[in-house]
Amino acid sequence: MGNYWIYENHTEGYEVRWKLKSILHEEKTAFQKLAVVDTLEWGKALILDGALQIAEKDEFIYHEMIVHVPIHAHPHPERVLIIGGGDGGTLREVVRHATVKKIDMVEIDERVVKVSQQYFPKVASAFDDPRLNLHIGDGIKYVAETTQEYDLVIVDSSDPVGPAVQLFSRDFYQSIYSILAEDGMVTVQSESPIFFEEAFRSVHKNMGAVFPKVNIYLASIPTYVSGPWTFTIGSKKHNPVKIQGDRTCLSGLKYYNESVHEAAFSLPQFIKSMVG
Amino acid sequence: MGNYWIYENHTEGYEVRWKLKSILHEEKTAFQKLAVVDTLEWGKALILDGALQIAEKDEFIYHEMIVHVPIHAHPHPERVLIIGGGDGGTLREVVRHATVKKIDMVEIDERVVKVSQQYFPKVASAFDDPRLNLHIGDGIKYVAETTQEYDLVIVDSSDPVGPAVQLFSRDFYQSIYSILAEDGMVTVQSESPIFFEEAFRSVHKNMGAVFPKVNIYLASIPTYVSGPWTFTIGSKKHNPVKIQGDRTCLSGLKYYNESVHEAAFSLPQFIKSMVG
Repeated sequence: MGNYWIYENHTEGYEVRWKLKSILHEEKTAFQKLAVVDTLEWGKALILDGALQIAEKDEFIYHEMIVHVPIHAHPHPERVLIIGGGDGGTLREVVRHATVKKIDMVEIDERVVKVSQQYFPKVASAFDDPRLNLHIGDGIKYVAETTQEYDLVIVDSSDPVGPAVQLFSRDFYQSIYSILAEDGMVTVQSESPIFFEEAFRSVHKNMGAVFPKVNIYLASIPTYVSGPWTFTIGSKKHNPVKIQGDRTCLSGLKYYNESVHEAAFSLPQFIKSMVG
Repeated sequence: MGNYWIYENHTEGYEVRWKLKSILHEEKTAFQKLAVVDTLEWGKALILDGALQIAEKDEFIYHEMIVHVPIHAHPHPERVLIIGGGDGGTLREVVRHATVKKIDMVEIDERVVKVSQQYFPKVASAFDDPRLNLHIGDGIKYVAETTQEYDLVIVDSSDPVGPAVQLFSRDFYQSIYSILAEDGMVTVQSESPIFFEEAFRSVHKNMGAVFPKVNIYLASIPTYVSGPWTFTIGSKKHNPVKIQGDRTCLSGLKYYNESVHEAAFSLPQFIKSMVG
C-alpha cells in the first residue's frame, strides 16, 4: 500500500491530513470536482472540491443533529424541504419520522446522488421513500418559485464558497420565510465559529433580519474542522430549544437524545459574544 | 518568513499541521522535550514531546472547564490540589474563587513552570498567589505520602504516554480517594473518546472502581484533536451535574457559564454506549 494522504487547508495556518487506503472515484461534474476515497481510519469519504463532506465513521453526528433538533422542536412536522444534502444522509434521518408526510429535496448536482448511492449505500438509503420528491436543480430558484408550503426547511449546504455562497444570504432566508407555514422553521449548517467566524456571524445576522427567533446550537464533528460546529435555526413561532414533536423515532440513534437537544443550545461565553 | 510547520500525528491516519512564525525556545528537560513556538493563527504554543499542550488563543476553554465545573459543583471548595498543570492555566482559574483557602500544586518538571512564566505571562499569572504552595516533584508520590486532606483534586496531565501513564491508573485514583474529604471530588482530563477511546474508557473504568459517583463532561477544544474532549469527575458524595458552590467568580470568563455547566454532562448516545 502506498503512502497516500488527502489534506485540507482550513485556514492559511491550519491543515489536516487523512491517510488513504485508495482513491475509489474521481470526476468533474457540471458543478464541482467529486471524489470518493477510502481512508485508513474513517471509512469511505466523499470529497467535493477538495473538502471532506462526509466520512462513514462520523457522518451520523452531522446528519442526526441537522435533522432531529428542528424536527423534535416542531409540534407537527409534516412537510419538509431539504436543500442540498445530495448524499442522502439528511433524508435518511428525516424519513425516520412517521409524522412527516411529504419530503421535497432539491439537489443541484445529480452526480452527488448517484455516486452516493453507489459508494455510500448506508447514507443514501432513503431515496426510494414514497414520501420523497427529488428535484435536481437550483435550490435558490426552487425556493423563489415554488408554491408549496413547508413546516420545516433544512439547508444542508457545503461551505460558503462557489455555488453555495447564496445559500448563506439574507435574500435566500427571506425566500425561505415566505414558503414556511405560520409556525414553520428553517435549520442551516452555519460553520465553525472559530475557523470561519465571519461566515458564522453572517448567518446569524442574515437570519435575524428575517426571522423573529434565531437560535444557535452546537455539535462537535471529528471529520470537520476542530472545535464546535454550529447550526442555526430561524423560527417563526416555536422555541426550538424545547422538544415538542413526536419522540418515537429516538431508538437507533447514535448521537441525538433528549438531553443532547437542550444541551446543544447552551453556548459558551465566547460564542454568545460573537452574536450578542 | 520561512515556510515552517509543526505537525501532530494523533493516530496513524490523522495528522494536524500548524503554521509557525518562529520557534522561540527549545530544550530537553530532565523529563521531556519542551518547546515554545509562535504560530501564525493561534498565538504562542507550548509543546511537550511534540504534542501541543496549550495555545494562547484557546487555552481558556480547557482551563476554565477543568476548574470551574468541579469547583462550582462543590458547596465549599476550600482545599484544592492540582497535579501537573505546570503552565499555570489551571491555577489561574482556581485562584478566581474566594472560597478557596489553600492550593497545593505538584508539578514534576520545574522547567515547564519557568518557561511558562517567561513566555506565557497571561497563563502563568497566579504563581505568586499567597494561597499557593508549589511543590516540584512527582504527583503520584505526593498523593501517596501526603497527610493533607483536600476538597478537590484536579489532575491536569498530559496524554497517557511516558511519565503520565500512571496518572490514569486505578492505584492513583485510589490514592486520591484516600486524601479527599468525605464529600471531596477529583477531576481529570480524560482524552478524546473517538481518537483515544481506550484511554477514555480506562479512566471511566478505573475511576468507577474507586468512586461511588463517576460523571463525564465534554468540551470542544480547537487546538486539541477534533471532536469532543472529555473530563471525568469522581465524587464521594455530591452530584457534580448540579451547581452548588459560590457563583461570584463568573464574571470575566470566556467559556464557562451556568448553562454550559449542566449541558457539558449531556452525552451523545455513542459516548454513553462506550461506558454504559
